[in-house]
Amino acid sequence: GTVKKIAVLPGDGIGPEIMEEALKVLRKVEDQFGHSFQFTFGMAGGGAVDRVGNPLPEETLSLCQQSDAVLLAAVGGPKWDNNPPELRPEQALLGLRKSLNLYANLRPAVLFEGLENASTLKPEVVKGVDLLVVRELTGGIYFGEKKRERLEDGEQATDTLVYHEREVERIVRRAFEIARGRRKKLTSVDKANILESSRLWRSVVDRVARDYPDVQVEHVLVDNCAMQLIRRPADFDVIVTENMFGDILSDETAMLTGSIGLLPSASLGEGTTGLYEPVHGSAPDIAGQSVANPAAMILSAAMMLRHSFGYEEAATAVEQAVRKVLADGHRTADLAGPGALAVSTEEFGDLVVEAM
Amino acid sequence: GTVKKIAVLPGDGIGPEIMEEALKVLRKVEDQFGHSFQFTFGMAGGGAVDRVGNPLPEETLSLCQQSDAVLLAAVGGPKWDNNPPELRPEQALLGLRKSLNLYANLRPAVLFEGLENASTLKPEVVKGVDLLVVRELTGGIYFGEKKRERLEDGEQATDTLVYHEREVERIVRRAFEIARGRRKKLTSVDKANILESSRLWRSVVDRVARDYPDVQVEHVLVDNCAMQLIRRPADFDVIVTENMFGDILSDETAMLTGSIGLLPSASLGEGTTGLYEPVHGSAPDIAGQSVANPAAMILSAAMMLRHSFGYEEAATAVEQAVRKVLADGHRTADLAGPGALAVSTEEFGDLVVEAM
Ligand SMILES: CC(C)[C@H](C(=O)O)[C@@H](O)C(=O)O
Ligand SMILES: CC(C)[C@H](C(=O)O)[C@@H](O)C(=O)O
Repeated sequence: GTVKKIAVLPGDGIGPEIMEEALKVLRKVEDQFGHSFQFTFGMAGGGAVDRVGNPLPEETLSLCQQSDAVLLAAVGGPKWDNNPPELRPEQALLGLRKSLNLYANLRPAVLFEGLENASTLKPEVVKGVDLLVVRELTGGIYFGEKKRERLEDGEQATDTLVYHEREVERIVRRAFEIARGRRKKLTSVDKANILESSRLWRSVVDRVARDYPDVQVEHVLVDNCAMQLIRRPADFDVIVTENMFGDILSDETAMLTGSIGLLPSASLGEGTTGLYEPVHGSAPDIAGQSVANPAAMILSAAMMLRHSFGYEEAATAVEQAVRKVLADGHRTADLAGPGALAVSTEEFGDLVVEAM
Repeated sequence: GTVKKIAVLPGDGIGPEIMEEALKVLRKVEDQFGHSFQFTFGMAGGGAVDRVGNPLPEETLSLCQQSDAVLLAAVGGPKWDNNPPELRPEQALLGLRKSLNLYANLRPAVLFEGLENASTLKPEVVKGVDLLVVRELTGGIYFGEKKRERLEDGEQATDTLVYHEREVERIVRRAFEIARGRRKKLTSVDKANILESSRLWRSVVDRVARDYPDVQVEHVLVDNCAMQLIRRPADFDVIVTENMFGDILSDETAMLTGSIGLLPSASLGEGTTGLYEPVHGSAPDIAGQSVANPAAMILSAAMMLRHSFGYEEAATAVEQAVRKVLADGHRTADLAGPGALAVSTEEFGDLVVEAM
């Protein structure tokens, strides 16, 4: 088969540790399924700011552009929090999203067997949670014009939320396609009672919906959605929304099952290139201690196998291995509970490889 | 004493029913505390659209402007959902907020005794929840310029998020004052890693904080806040944020305790005028059946007694009466649980009056 080129960006904090485990698993995938990967490491985030004064160095960007997929662990940390915007670690993310045109962010939230009690929500409420947030990632207020003005009576700041119907249509269509392959329920989230961009969004959803008569669509206002996710999370299947609402709701969603250390994400463009990263952050407070949970990183690699390479069988094998390790009761410190014996980052990775 | 003029806007759906109970309680306050109220009814919302083609008729607006406070029950319903923006019920709210300059929206979320189990969150997680969201209500993307353009390659929509530092300062100062009278902890929520308006917001918070050295301040990103509210809701005291983030987070917050039928809100300006309304909506599906929970409306009236009239003793008496009725086990249908015997809207109102 062909060799898939993977750009590996370990980033900051626990990033390098969890990336190591994902690569371990991918090497096992090579052996077991006869696939072949070429890993090339790149700098990104706070470490890159420190070393070369740029969170997304040119060579990292071109490495990613020339790769078949990007694996990113985590960027950021308090050290860089007061940097000016262009020297902040998260610029690496924003830059990659924009330059690779990764407009579709997919964040699944699933309740794993054996973890019914990890959530702050009642087990009977999170039972059966299996939802996917599809977030628009390259438009909206993230990338609209920004302004800071000094007026006579003080300062004023402006951000601009712009959506072109083309941008809305491509993400909405993608969400419909995905919903079709799942439970066929799509919740479109907007604030159409206030925002013009939401009214455009809603009209595009209604138009595209005609091409997907088999998918059941509902429009929910963002404030109401923030409520309903807590009240009846298991009722949701696919949620599609614009960039900023998606940022907020996907983080809320990530907390529902109580195991953010298990949640992967994929950011996809028109072709097969994609960027894959855990939903959790760089957790600098626990970095270097071998206590980080590598599951989200490993599951992000599984999403890469599926979405960028079409290696469905390998993807499923990795996912099932992670599920099995968890179902067998193995826990990293974040999920072990006080006093319980936890496995280390490396041990968890080894267990996944064994379970495959 | 002086006669306090109260504009009474029952609105749509269950609005009239729950308003009736709040007025019952206020009449009891007149008797018991020697206060004196003059109630004048006005049309607002969907009913006003139907009758006079305007969700906020001129005479309602001037009634409110001439009153010492406004009590509003609820507006809206599916009947008007597809109306053009200017004929939607919620324009009544937006119009009142803007014309009365009600820039500070206060939404307390408290766990009531006896309702530890009403939440979808675990009892040990919601135990001790007592937080207040202070939301900026007359600025930001709600009131910035909106645009819809037909470009050569399709439609484009724009919304604008603008904040002047004056607008930020007055709400932030208010939040600090309130925090000072509570547990002295203020969480300012923004998205300073992306938005220019958030960076202005954060700098104003830091500047104002110097005048309140006794209050502990933290900055939390909006996505992270959406998570932390689910993870450790009892840790929050006062949360201050801009209009749209406040809309989303206060609704999320309202769901934490599982009893949105109990949550009041106040919208305040510079003087003592204020608008008081329940957090819940008009619930047209249960209107006219005497099953609605009037507690949030009654507690909104209590907030009016406190914030607009300075009747602290009466406010506390009403609040304690509601707490007692609940602690005694009386439940309207929304909280009774399946199969349990529920009290009607009127019975709940009567019980509160008795408990006073
Ligand atoms: C780090 C930040 C810029 C980013 C975002 O807001 O998109 C993050 O919160 C995310 O959701 O990936
Ligand atoms: C009805 C709507 C316009 C309103 C808002 O978005 O402010 C409501 O959600 C609220 O929070 O009071």
